[in-house]
Amino acid sequence: MQTVYDTDNIFAKILRGEIPNHTVYEDDKTLAFMDVMPQARGHVLVVPKTAAVELSDLPLDYAQAVLATAQKVMAAQRQVLKRSGIVQMQLNGAQAGQSVFHYHLHLIPSNVHELGRHEGGMADHNELAALAAELRAAL
Amino acid sequence: MQTVYDTDNIFAKILRGEIPNHTVYEDDKTLAFMDVMPQARGHVLVVPKTAAVELSDLPLDYAQAVLATAQKVMAAQRQVLKRSGIVQMQLNGAQAGQSVFHYHLHLIPSNVHELGRHEGGMADHNELAALAAELRAAL
Repeated sequence: MQTVYDTDNIFAKILRGEIPNHTVYEDDKTLAFMDVMPQARGHVLVVPKTAAVELSDLPLDYAQAVLATAQKVMAAQRQVLKRSGIVQMQLNGAQAGQSVFHYHLHLIPSNVHELGRHEGGMADHNELAALAAELRAAL
Repeated sequence: MQTVYDTDNIFAKILRGEIPNHTVYEDDKTLAFMDVMPQARGHVLVVPKTAAVELSDLPLDYAQAVLATAQKVMAAQRQVLKRSGIVQMQLNGAQAGQSVFHYHLHLIPSNVHELGRHEGGMADHNELAALAAELRAAL
């Protein structure tokens, strides 16, 4: 279990604007963007704008903000992707499969029995940009 | 997607005390108890004490309460089960694999790549009771 927050993790860099992202939604406490290695079409990540490794060190006001953003994003996913089933998942610790050590909540338009292993590789960025635009418009 | 809350769902019955459960933690807004069909040893469910089908209709004060309880339970799981990896999952809609239509958050001491299909059958109730007691003591 990694308990010390590494400010050079990729989501910290995204939050600082050092790495681009396909933004779906943003407010003062959260950022939602397309997962570049989607487990299903329309896979979105929600991250809090605070230095939390995982659930155990996420301040409760950010916890609430993350789920509020997840509600908004999920509604847009359902509208754009024309499906109702959304898997919400969040991994705590490398032993659980967490690979980026900034808290992030997955919203995956999929079925729990069909979840892949996040090993499909990088998505096409033009496609992600187009999908992010559709989701933003549906928010 | 089921949007109308059915007051006869099994978790509603548990919250009303009509069906017993192996309680790990309880406060005014949430109940955490052992999953009787665990996907891994120590699998706990957190449910809000409000009539929410899934994430989309969960009031934000309950959303925060659910994650606050999840933090407490996860700490106890790590201590009792002596492992750091905890998968947090929550299914929205039958199409995602949701089978009980009262919002519930899974805390599974497992790895995302090892998640089963919740088809291992019922756990032994004596074992669940003993584990629940260990987790309560670790809270």
